[in-house]
Amino acid sequence: MSFDLLIKGGVVATASDVFRADIGVRDGVIAALGLDLGAADEVIDASGKLVLPGGIDSHVHIAQPSGDGIVMADDFESATRSAAFGGNTTVMPFCMQERGTPLRATLADYHAKADGECFVDVSFHLVISEPNAQTLGQDLPALIEDGYTSFKVFMTYEGLALDDMEMLEVMSTARETGALVMVHAENYDAIRFLADRLERAGKTAPFFHGPSRPIPVEREATHRAISLAEIVDVPVVIVHVSNREAMEEIARARRRGLKVYGETCPQYLVLTEKDMDGLNMEGAKYVCSPPPRDEAHQQACWEGLEQGIFDLFSSDHCPFRYDDPKGKLNPKARTSFRWVPNGIPGVETRLPILFSEGVSKGRITLQQFVALSASNHARMYGLTRKGSIAIGMDADIAIWDPEREVVISQSLLHHGPDYTPYEGIPVKGWPVTTIVRGKPIVRDGALVGAKGQGGYVVRERSAYARPKTRP
Amino acid sequence: MSFDLLIKGGVVATASDVFRADIGVRDGVIAALGLDLGAADEVIDASGKLVLPGGIDSHVHIAQPSGDGIVMADDFESATRSAAFGGNTTVMPFCMQERGTPLRATLADYHAKADGECFVDVSFHLVISEPNAQTLGQDLPALIEDGYTSFKVFMTYEGLALDDMEMLEVMSTARETGALVMVHAENYDAIRFLADRLERAGKTAPFFHGPSRPIPVEREATHRAISLAEIVDVPVVIVHVSNREAMEEIARARRRGLKVYGETCPQYLVLTEKDMDGLNMEGAKYVCSPPPRDEAHQQACWEGLEQGIFDLFSSDHCPFRYDDPKGKLNPKARTSFRWVPNGIPGVETRLPILFSEGVSKGRITLQQFVALSASNHARMYGLTRKGSIAIGMDADIAIWDPEREVVISQSLLHHGPDYTPYEGIPVKGWPVTTIVRGKPIVRDGALVGAKGQGGYVVRERSAYARPKTRP
Amino acid sequence: MSFDLLIKGGVVATASDVFRADIGVRDGVIAALGLDLGAADEVIDASGKLVLPGGIDSHVHIAQPSGDGIVMADDFESATRSAAFGGNTTVMPFCMQERGTPLRATLADYHAKADGECFVDVSFHLVISEPNAQTLGQDLPALIEDGYTSFKVFMTYEGLALDDMEMLEVMSTARETGALVMVHAENYDAIRFLADRLERAGKTAPFFHGPSRPIPVEREATHRAISLAEIVDVPVVIVHVSNREAMEEIARARRRGLKVYGETCPQYLVLTEKDMDGLNMEGAKYVCSPPPRDEAHQQACWEGLEQGIFDLFSSDHCPFRYDDPKGKLNPKARTSFRWVPNGIPGVETRLPILFSEGVSKGRITLQQFVALSASNHARMYGLTRKGSIAIGMDADIAIWDPEREVVISQSLLHHGPDYTPYEGIPVKGWPVTTIVRGKPIVRDGALVGAKGQGGYVVRERSAYARPKTRP
Amino acid sequence: MSFDLLIKGGVVATASDVFRADIGVRDGVIAALGLDLGAADEVIDASGKLVLPGGIDSHVHIAQPSGDGIVMADDFESATRSAAFGGNTTVMPFCMQERGTPLRATLADYHAKADGECFVDVSFHLVISEPNAQTLGQDLPALIEDGYTSFKVFMTYEGLALDDMEMLEVMSTARETGALVMVHAENYDAIRFLADRLERAGKTAPFFHGPSRPIPVEREATHRAISLAEIVDVPVVIVHVSNREAMEEIARARRRGLKVYGETCPQYLVLTEKDMDGLNMEGAKYVCSPPPRDEAHQQACWEGLEQGIFDLFSSDHCPFRYDDPKGKLNPKARTSFRWVPNGIPGVETRLPILFSEGVSKGRITLQQFVALSASNHARMYGLTRKGSIAIGMDADIAIWDPEREVVISQSLLHHGPDYTPYEGIPVKGWPVTTIVRGKPIVRDGALVGAKGQGGYVVRERSAYARPKTRP
Repeated sequence: MSFDLLIKGGVVATASDVFRADIGVRDGVIAALGLDLGAADEVIDASGKLVLPGGIDSHVHIAQPSGDGIVMADDFESATRSAAFGGNTTVMPFCMQERGTPLRATLADYHAKADGECFVDVSFHLVISEPNAQTLGQDLPALIEDGYTSFKVFMTYEGLALDDMEMLEVMSTARETGALVMVHAENYDAIRFLADRLERAGKTAPFFHGPSRPIPVEREATHRAISLAEIVDVPVVIVHVSNREAMEEIARARRRGLKVYGETCPQYLVLTEKDMDGLNMEGAKYVCSPPPRDEAHQQACWEGLEQGIFDLFSSDHCPFRYDDPKGKLNPKARTSFRWVPNGIPGVETRLPILFSEGVSKGRITLQQFVALSASNHARMYGLTRKGSIAIGMDADIAIWDPEREVVISQSLLHHGPDYTPYEGIPVKGWPVTTIVRGKPIVRDGALVGAKGQGGYVVRERSAYARPKTRP
Repeated sequence: MSFDLLIKGGVVATASDVFRADIGVRDGVIAALGLDLGAADEVIDASGKLVLPGGIDSHVHIAQPSGDGIVMADDFESATRSAAFGGNTTVMPFCMQERGTPLRATLADYHAKADGECFVDVSFHLVISEPNAQTLGQDLPALIEDGYTSFKVFMTYEGLALDDMEMLEVMSTARETGALVMVHAENYDAIRFLADRLERAGKTAPFFHGPSRPIPVEREATHRAISLAEIVDVPVVIVHVSNREAMEEIARARRRGLKVYGETCPQYLVLTEKDMDGLNMEGAKYVCSPPPRDEAHQQACWEGLEQGIFDLFSSDHCPFRYDDPKGKLNPKARTSFRWVPNGIPGVETRLPILFSEGVSKGRITLQQFVALSASNHARMYGLTRKGSIAIGMDADIAIWDPEREVVISQSLLHHGPDYTPYEGIPVKGWPVTTIVRGKPIVRDGALVGAKGQGGYVVRERSAYARPKTRP
Repeated sequence: MSFDLLIKGGVVATASDVFRADIGVRDGVIAALGLDLGAADEVIDASGKLVLPGGIDSHVHIAQPSGDGIVMADDFESATRSAAFGGNTTVMPFCMQERGTPLRATLADYHAKADGECFVDVSFHLVISEPNAQTLGQDLPALIEDGYTSFKVFMTYEGLALDDMEMLEVMSTARETGALVMVHAENYDAIRFLADRLERAGKTAPFFHGPSRPIPVEREATHRAISLAEIVDVPVVIVHVSNREAMEEIARARRRGLKVYGETCPQYLVLTEKDMDGLNMEGAKYVCSPPPRDEAHQQACWEGLEQGIFDLFSSDHCPFRYDDPKGKLNPKARTSFRWVPNGIPGVETRLPILFSEGVSKGRITLQQFVALSASNHARMYGLTRKGSIAIGMDADIAIWDPEREVVISQSLLHHGPDYTPYEGIPVKGWPVTTIVRGKPIVRDGALVGAKGQGGYVVRERSAYARPKTRP
Repeated sequence: MSFDLLIKGGVVATASDVFRADIGVRDGVIAALGLDLGAADEVIDASGKLVLPGGIDSHVHIAQPSGDGIVMADDFESATRSAAFGGNTTVMPFCMQERGTPLRATLADYHAKADGECFVDVSFHLVISEPNAQTLGQDLPALIEDGYTSFKVFMTYEGLALDDMEMLEVMSTARETGALVMVHAENYDAIRFLADRLERAGKTAPFFHGPSRPIPVEREATHRAISLAEIVDVPVVIVHVSNREAMEEIARARRRGLKVYGETCPQYLVLTEKDMDGLNMEGAKYVCSPPPRDEAHQQACWEGLEQGIFDLFSSDHCPFRYDDPKGKLNPKARTSFRWVPNGIPGVETRLPILFSEGVSKGRITLQQFVALSASNHARMYGLTRKGSIAIGMDADIAIWDPEREVVISQSLLHHGPDYTPYEGIPVKGWPVTTIVRGKPIVRDGALVGAKGQGGYVVRERSAYARPKTRP
């Protein structure tokens, strides 16, 4: 037997097993697992290392138009380079429909931006902001057939928020087509109501972003999204859950027998609302939605990860520069938290934080890490050739040094923003080599791949997307 | 000591006590309790009877315009006569604002309809359907000062449904003025979504009213209303709760320390969705919202009454004739359940049903009956002189024969509709005499009072309406 | 009309109502309520005061033998004098069966101790420590017929703890006879297991009393007692609940439809485990079981009182002197927390603490205060002539000055111990006059009654003691 | 590359992945996974079949002395033969300490019975029935070091039931040694109490086995076991959970952050209490403890499997002959259900039932089947070389025909009893070939292995057995 690539001597982990094996790769695919597998064109020595499925970050924002002259700090090149350094082999950005633009045109635009630019594989979620007859009756069903099998809806944000009737119509389409619905769950009216009152009271610093979106705002929308999905009888993913109360809505729904899934993110494990309380405008660095809460809710999110209430752990990478008039510190942002661009970067730091705080500190097992970082994303979103180390799967692999100690710092990262909200956090465990479909992109910490090596992935329907009806 | 009226020989009950006493009434007020109280102009012998606070039905609809030529089957005269026969001494109808009409004008209209027509006392809740600056900034605060200290909002119904921002604004006014907010909690969009689909599937019989408003529709809106109230920090009453899931939302909210109160109604104790499954159009007789559920949810509602999750038991009397083109069987109703007028009569049967199924069958104590039928309504809605038998209170009294067995039948009732949804239900315990401010209206089952004896009651603020902030 | 006693000008409160009325008393009974009631031999001016049902403290220990030469610091004279000063008109001590002694003999002994010594009325609960055939088959049923309609069992303490079979047998007798079972719920084995380990680790100071009885010890026994009662189908009262977890077991049981009732005490509202952390042996002053917990659990107990999970608020008065070789500081107590006599005094301070922290601070209403301090105890334990202000009830009355501000101090109290665990706590609201069956015992803060005025009360069966079987 | 055995053409499943691969086995170990792996001494064609990790049944009783002349219907030969036909490659029987016998002696006895008799691998749990100083201080710690890393305790059964102090002591030893505690959770006293009363009422038929052990009996003991484990801070497995209420105790414990695991069994998925209601003595066939409940609780157990509340699905194989004076129909059994031997056979039918009702009917995924039938057992009980298909693992493999339809019948089975409680249940999916450490035992439905091929497995400590203390 001969291979294109042989990864030798490492400890391999899947979502269920940890075992010592070499991996033989042929034609970009995992062709054999074993010991003494034979010859290969290229051999990577993974002795003393962990050989894991490459991370799948199923929740990132890249090169989205952001209005008001605000510019995202990552294009596909920088975002996917950063992702690769963070141990990821696939990212799933959003293709954001703007009202008035047909889905197909939007999609063409994003494909054009991504084409030839990517270091890792990419697959798009759609965002439905205009669920009219054209979208729901024709475009969306066709696109789902074409492999865009998931889409996201927003319950907040100007120009994006769907009302309940639109949510029901969109979910109904998902049911008919077998697509999976992702929901950003915050109550739009409540946020505007609170933001208005805070502004009127002169409370305009970035810190007040948090009080404008308290937990009941998120819990309410979470329960509402779940209830609408229950009425339509369709599975649903609640993304970026920040706290125990919203999490408990997911758990309650499951106890009712519903197919409701949850995602949380690094910002809800290691940041708190206090991080937004910076002097001057420093707090803007941490403004994202939902906002980070407090230590008790961090603990709740860990429980959700450990106990399977959350199937997904994503970055919600949404990159803006801080010290930039087109970024966090744009002129209007200084007048109110309302104008601080919403989102923080994290595609490169997601996995080191989860590994270090989770695996190294004993909160989760290595198998749970693999499930939360890769396998579950693949199953959830129909990436049937991704997310595990098994025969026939794409050879998407991250090699980790579990003992490497690093202090997270902007100077180490490869993303577009000029800061990281995780500055100064020490981690133990670091991805050193990233291989996409058998080709090393990062090797021993150095970029060895070229942009364009990452491709676009057509998806199957979600393995989770069965209506709740039971046998 | 001498009295205008002496009620002798009965067993008196309040929400806390049951004791043998005579009641001396002077100037319409309870002046003395005791035995051998002395002389009186008029003596009522209550031997072998229960002497209870007159019922307060805090949720009735009288003479409301209903659109499309539909006419309510009760005016103030017939409704309050029916109420008196049902053991009630006060009813609280809604003064329903129509969009485009100022609150003051609406109120003047209802006062004009009621004036001089009533057999029992009346006090109005406002319904806010147009929460604009005039309403919230001026009219409503002034009216609350004038003693209209509670108002209701709807989360469903064309022309009535408020969106979340309107709910928040209205609740904010309630917080500032100390008014109490009542909420009809059903998700409007979900009902329209389901009704559309049912109609398209040819499912138009009255029976499909139920499937167009399944439990998640009510649970969702209940949780949303509670969450909005939590955000504003204001107490709220969820009216006409039909099932365990919505009830559990109230219980959960209380466990979070919120001031959330609940009401249920006879239709949720003794009717089920199966009652709507009549041949031809018979099911229309039972169409009300939320719809009756099943036996398990009836049991849940009993638990809520027994355990204090529900403070209020009201009729939601909303009278329409059945066999009438201006009532349930209007021409459009035959084309779809959507056009069946929503609501059923019940002001006269509420208390016999609760007494018989509750007290006579041992589910609740006599004291709980008094609390649920009268005292809690008075406290909840600021009727400070009503709802109990105590010195200085209005002599509003119902004398019950606890052993009287009656089969409920349209022929026995005094309301305007041509049917009762409770036809054929046997009850044990019946109100025989009703006294309003010391004057008998019904005596030994016969009408002895005249219309106009019932007056209008100005209210204080609710004893329950304190924001949740704790000491 | 003429009366023996007229209480004029006060504001009367019952568990349901607050109203201005005079109270006419004849033959020790409330004969009339009204204004201008006529003449009386004696008139008490209650202007500006609250006139409440006298407190019933249904959980006190008086003159119990305590083993090892330990002596309780109150006999019936001092305990009931102290109770009267604390606004109480009835106390319910335990008649504690010692193994080897028949119930009748035990009871005779307690009656002998109490006879002619009491300032307020007294009624006994039995404690069953030897549930043999004689006790369960003959003595207990006969005593229940004689009006000793409640009894307590212990799940911990040497010589008292019943095993599960004994609990079941005792509960079975309760079911057959209609008696009410009270349970001290802590897991005996777990306490011994933990105490052994603490002692072996040299952790013997009074502070370690708390760690020897952590919350799971109490929650476990609470759930077990409830489950055994569920199996037998008999109501049960869980006494002195200290924390949210045990409380939640009661709430869960009710949601299953069971008749489970709860009691909490002042020590769980205003003390914490930190109070036991005194220098030297000071912590011994606060040693009671279950031990006080922390602020979050205090808050939980308030919720339980406010929301009706707890029907009863008692003192668990269990008096020992502190600086006394026969009390808290007995020689063995210095060697281990295990030998510190278990219990603290509180019969005189119970009501001022509840009034001040509850009513004056707005956590509960005055009606709730009456229910929790008197009415519910009367209903729970069959004191049918006690616990309210209503015609025909015993004229057991406490007159409170709601504005009086007092700092609790040993120097103000009348109990036997040489300290109070509530030293230094400021309260607003104080009982100034206590009247037992129409005779003032304390008047304007001075003792005016004589011992022997308090009598023994034969009881009916509990109004709550119906098996759960539903109609 | 060459192999001893090559399994070709099948679809392999692990707890995380499903993929097409050949498996190369060398020296009884999985040496390679891939396609076109090369030559082998023996080739098994698995085309169209599923190739799964061999089942691990971690809860079986074999050849236990049962008292009163009752004889278990399986020795190690028949039990392990039956297991092999049921797709199992490892079984874990109990080595049951009898009071008065040291653990080592007991163990020697079981080893002697098993030695040379087994068709599949075997590893023993200990049962601790006499937790004295010798057992806890010396024998048990030494045996845990020797690889007997789990033990079971009983809360019921004469001669086995431990009291709470014994439970705490045993758990304490587990904490110190890193062993895992399994608990049979039913309240012994409550069972005796109820059984006595049923017998006295003449209710002695096998059917009354169920009413003698109602759900609160199991829920109580479950909560108690968990609480004791919480006090000691040690993980615990609650075995054979039969109903929602006991399951909810496990879920609640996890929400408190505890390491509490659960197991359920086929009898709780497909049998009900009605099965015990046979004419004459037929019901005895279904007598096991806890007893099967009803359809709603079956549904609850499915939820527990699907949602991960149960990590384990075992048979609780406990074989007795039915029509045999040494079995179910022993002379005393005819006088009372109490003497019907407790337990039913199931080692051969466990997996077909789970596969058919679970995988074929769409309730669980194939990966969940693997986890519940094999992988989780291996991780839970330290069988580090078992339970998955991965490089270096023992080649313990079951080949399934997912389309084979079979009606379960005694005539098809290979166990010792003369009946199966699952008679007549149709299943889809059947294990056709079973391979233990690379050697086929059953091939295409025929026995090809010999007794003695199964060996004894020394175990590591549980991967789950970490105390709850968090980082």
